[in-house]
Amino acid sequence: MRFFSDNAAPVCQPVLDAMLAANTLDTAYDGDRWSKALDGAMSDLFETQVACLWVPTGTAANALALAAMVPPHGATICHAEAHIQVDECGAPEFFTHGAKLLLVEGHGAKLTPAALAETLGGIRDDVHQVQPHAVSITNATEYGRVYTPVEVAAIAEVIRPRRLGLHMDGARFANAVAHLGCSPAEVTWRAGVDALSFGFVKNGGMGAEALVFFKPELAAATRYRRKRAGHFLSKGRFLAAQILAMLEGDVWLDNARAANAGAQLLAQAAGERLVQPVEANEVFLRLTADEAAGLRAQGFDFYDWGVGEARLVTAWDQGAEIVAPLAQAIAAL
Amino acid sequence: MRFFSDNAAPVCQPVLDAMLAANTLDTAYDGDRWSKALDGAMSDLFETQVACLWVPTGTAANALALAAMVPPHGATICHAEAHIQVDECGAPEFFTHGAKLLLVEGHGAKLTPAALAETLGGIRDDVHQVQPHAVSITNATEYGRVYTPVEVAAIAEVIRPRRLGLHMDGARFANAVAHLGCSPAEVTWRAGVDALSFGFVKNGGMGAEALVFFKPELAAATRYRRKRAGHFLSKGRFLAAQILAMLEGDVWLDNARAANAGAQLLAQAAGERLVQPVEANEVFLRLTADEAAGLRAQGFDFYDWGVGEARLVTAWDQGAEIVAPLAQAIAAL
Amino acid sequence: MRFFSDNAAPVCQPVLDAMLAANTLDTAYDGDRWSKALDGAMSDLFETQVACLWVPTGTAANALALAAMVPPHGATICHAEAHIQVDECGAPEFFTHGAKLLLVEGHGAKLTPAALAETLGGIRDDVHQVQPHAVSITNATEYGRVYTPVEVAAIAEVIRPRRLGLHMDGARFANAVAHLGCSPAEVTWRAGVDALSFGFVKNGGMGAEALVFFKPELAAATRYRRKRAGHFLSKGRFLAAQILAMLEGDVWLDNARAANAGAQLLAQAAGERLVQPVEANEVFLRLTADEAAGLRAQGFDFYDWGVGEARLVTAWDQGAEIVAPLAQAIAAL
Amino acid sequence: MRFFSDNAAPVCQPVLDAMLAANTLDTAYDGDRWSKALDGAMSDLFETQVACLWVPTGTAANALALAAMVPPHGATICHAEAHIQVDECGAPEFFTHGAKLLLVEGHGAKLTPAALAETLGGIRDDVHQVQPHAVSITNATEYGRVYTPVEVAAIAEVIRPRRLGLHMDGARFANAVAHLGCSPAEVTWRAGVDALSFGFVKNGGMGAEALVFFKPELAAATRYRRKRAGHFLSKGRFLAAQILAMLEGDVWLDNARAANAGAQLLAQAAGERLVQPVEANEVFLRLTADEAAGLRAQGFDFYDWGVGEARLVTAWDQGAEIVAPLAQAIAAL
Repeated sequence: MRFFSDNAAPVCQPVLDAMLAANTLDTAYDGDRWSKALDGAMSDLFETQVACLWVPTGTAANALALAAMVPPHGATICHAEAHIQVDECGAPEFFTHGAKLLLVEGHGAKLTPAALAETLGGIRDDVHQVQPHAVSITNATEYGRVYTPVEVAAIAEVIRPRRLGLHMDGARFANAVAHLGCSPAEVTWRAGVDALSFGFVKNGGMGAEALVFFKPELAAATRYRRKRAGHFLSKGRFLAAQILAMLEGDVWLDNARAANAGAQLLAQAAGERLVQPVEANEVFLRLTADEAAGLRAQGFDFYDWGVGEARLVTAWDQGAEIVAPLAQAIAAL
Repeated sequence: MRFFSDNAAPVCQPVLDAMLAANTLDTAYDGDRWSKALDGAMSDLFETQVACLWVPTGTAANALALAAMVPPHGATICHAEAHIQVDECGAPEFFTHGAKLLLVEGHGAKLTPAALAETLGGIRDDVHQVQPHAVSITNATEYGRVYTPVEVAAIAEVIRPRRLGLHMDGARFANAVAHLGCSPAEVTWRAGVDALSFGFVKNGGMGAEALVFFKPELAAATRYRRKRAGHFLSKGRFLAAQILAMLEGDVWLDNARAANAGAQLLAQAAGERLVQPVEANEVFLRLTADEAAGLRAQGFDFYDWGVGEARLVTAWDQGAEIVAPLAQAIAAL
Repeated sequence: MRFFSDNAAPVCQPVLDAMLAANTLDTAYDGDRWSKALDGAMSDLFETQVACLWVPTGTAANALALAAMVPPHGATICHAEAHIQVDECGAPEFFTHGAKLLLVEGHGAKLTPAALAETLGGIRDDVHQVQPHAVSITNATEYGRVYTPVEVAAIAEVIRPRRLGLHMDGARFANAVAHLGCSPAEVTWRAGVDALSFGFVKNGGMGAEALVFFKPELAAATRYRRKRAGHFLSKGRFLAAQILAMLEGDVWLDNARAANAGAQLLAQAAGERLVQPVEANEVFLRLTADEAAGLRAQGFDFYDWGVGEARLVTAWDQGAEIVAPLAQAIAAL
Repeated sequence: MRFFSDNAAPVCQPVLDAMLAANTLDTAYDGDRWSKALDGAMSDLFETQVACLWVPTGTAANALALAAMVPPHGATICHAEAHIQVDECGAPEFFTHGAKLLLVEGHGAKLTPAALAETLGGIRDDVHQVQPHAVSITNATEYGRVYTPVEVAAIAEVIRPRRLGLHMDGARFANAVAHLGCSPAEVTWRAGVDALSFGFVKNGGMGAEALVFFKPELAAATRYRRKRAGHFLSKGRFLAAQILAMLEGDVWLDNARAANAGAQLLAQAAGERLVQPVEANEVFLRLTADEAAGLRAQGFDFYDWGVGEARLVTAWDQGAEIVAPLAQAIAAL
């Protein structure tokens, strides 16, 4: 059983159905009716006028979002363990043409307003240093932690005087919203977020993510950058259809709730072993090499996380019932 | 009826079937068995050891190929009407970090050895001028013209003394091979091609193209560049499956033959109106504004091409029978 | 005797004197009083508020100017033989992060409003094509031709509706103004120029050029780009001092007048041989290989210009008297 | 009296004399006899065949050196307080097209082999992470600390198995060598250094630094990059002349010894106040706000360094005698 990544999960049926339905004659690129429906569907979901672009990967969404806010001679502030820093092979630097990532530490891969303020305070306002133009936070974080609307707003408050943009890497945005029980608007633009990488691939999609601009004017140049980066698929209707299928009937929320529920079951079994509170669909726990080997011998596949720790990830198709065997195996350690 | 672009055609059934079949649990990125099978399948097809990377778009394939051969301070020589110059919003410049495209004229968007030699001769070998590191040709060209193996070899001959790389944009490679009736090897590496963007999307695929390196060592850095550019899809198995499905049983050739046959029927109907010989699946013909309006009134959709000309493109699903009504309408003009 | 380039000429005495005078204790970078005086001195010269940055080379000035106006996914329109296209090893592409140069033909390396309008008309307003954001003209041109204020204004008129920036490469701006007899303002901002690379090195300076922004707000980001490009010299006072010395007492104009006068003498001697009207300090003339060899045997050094033509360049230290021997030698051919 | 930066010091007489002597007719760019003599002079100094390029700034030298060793999808490991990270406005990212700087902590801005090994060990060898291609160390460091040949060799030892390049930022290389009393070869290529930014501007030069490649083959592409970056001055003879003048008769060493001696006198006066051992020409000491104000009231100018500390920098013209008043003032605190 797979617990190493939600990236490896299958595609859910509504997405497959929508793709098959999209296989009818239509115009190329984003001239089709599915692509044209995206802005409206996302604006409805977020209760405000947004501009939404489909892209095939979260890396593309993140890097395009940053490029829309940060000039080549600028910088983005993010956590030292942010996906954009450690897992995208320099995509932000590629798309922004070399803007720096300025790194901040913090438990659970979360930025705190205090740490952010300290970093900002250490940057001289002269031409010898790159000046920050944006902050990027991940929600849920790389450690499965969730920023509340209040926490996001506190970060926005710190950067407002310097007019920095605020980007949210939402590769697991659905898991965060499912955990929070708030509206998508509450934890994004109402809290100060300017651009969201809204992930679907980890949550049952196949190859489509939504880049949502809450300041729609940021989208204009991004449309050129998307094409220039080779991310403007000629049969874009198949990407738009995926996203629309996920939004319809709240498939995105249902899928995330299932994954979160699976993680909660594992968390209960892990008890004192937990390294991080479990708020989304990732469980970090202490596990000796022997214990890890034991679980693997029972057919459970997952990543070690440094020495003596492990990471378990549940996906949309791994609700509480499905993960019960692993929960029992952990409890039995 | 659609004749404006093969980009807008539907996805063929073998590709859809393969995608559905790939929707089983497997590892992420390119660790799955479909992705792992690509090198072998392509090496078989090309009768030599190649390295093959899937990417979602032809623009990504082209730009990555050039980045593998041309440093930022170098240049690629291509036709003035090459897709990489006029239709990719500067993707080659983005991926190569600013390498120039040096443009050469030529009928039918074809480079001739003579024109190429003249361009090379005009470049001073000093640090004030960017030095060419590669030549890119499109086969079939943007005007539906086909380079024969002999013609490709003649170009390779011109650039060999300067050790330039040779890239082939094969967005319609299948149509070219179908026209030539030669082996894929003959018109590529045996004629001197180092890297091929092997297109499937215009030919019945959904969102997968193959970047084929005949010098496999060029692939190593490209794997990083692909990730960095956001083109390393986490569910890459769905891209690999598309390509494998197209290769199996020569679907790629059958589809291209159908499209070519449709174009031939239109060519016969167009007769003296033809502006270019029809060798692949594009037909360029003289058409007055009134004639164009007349065809459109009958439900045929296509692009004007400058003043007094038009472009008709047939796709894999538009064989001779399907295009017969348009052929008759043209003949009746 | 040197006629191959004004780049090779010595540095004039006022510049040397000013540099020696600047060798006193002062602050670093551009905090010194010479650097601080630049904006004022240039604003006086141009009769309007400008922002002026020193840089060590014309290539840096040109590339920074374009980077201030053109995004990476945009383009600059220039002449096919513009220095920025053929002699800067891709500096514009480096500084703009890959923005294209779209090339226009024209006699004497001059852009005409008609050719410019035709180029603009051929660019589709969609995301597949890079959109022009600026035009760059060289005054005096690479063929020693001069744009009049009326000609510059006509170009500005063409691009105004599309809000393109207008850059003037003034490596030989002094020679152009000396020829025109107009005010510097007249042929720049009053005619629609937004940024000028004001050259001093070819005209008696050592290693300092002025990048003059007539829209001072363009300078803000450029200050970061200058540092980032390694062009923010810590002893910048020696660059500022050079420029101020050239402005003081109109040394820049006197030097240019001398060079132009030398060129005029050569032009008179060349008579029917001239390929281009001589308006600045460059003379292009027909010369057989034997004739060229003959002149070289007499000690005159210059460049061949293709087959059967040659280029003679006079510098600030080569007024009419100095060039008389060459003029006589040409007349005697 | 200036103690805030050696950048602000005047130019020494031998450099001025050499520049005046270079003001004779010669060819442009690096075709002159001074530029041509650089390789030989540096090869003599370093007792091995090197390739040497002049550039106007240390930032350009550093960034070009890194671009010669690190691809855009790679990384350079350096200290978190390295000049290339905190004081060059992203020049390394600009010249390498976005390669990351991976930061390591260490006292006195020195990298230790252990810290380096730990950083290397934490980088997964997969396409999701940028792979290090070079290490950059500063000698003397930003805190006036000096790497010995043994220390440099220990760093080289760590990175040899991964074939990383080793760059030395030698903005104050002269001060380091003067302190070490070793040969320039010993602390560079013999210890494993591949490229050196050899600084002269802080040490009595005007605007010329030497980029020295101990692997001369690295210079070839760099010559194009230098031009492309606008750093190929047309009157390059004035840069070459500066460097040659500094080398002749060991002016570079004499100047550095004087600056170091000045710093030693200050160090003795500072005694227990010292925060760092004084090994070059920088003195970091504890100083209360009142004490700092007191010194400034006596006419001594310097930078605060965080809270309760200050940085004093001596220059080539500030030997022991010149700095005696400040030493006395410190002792009297």
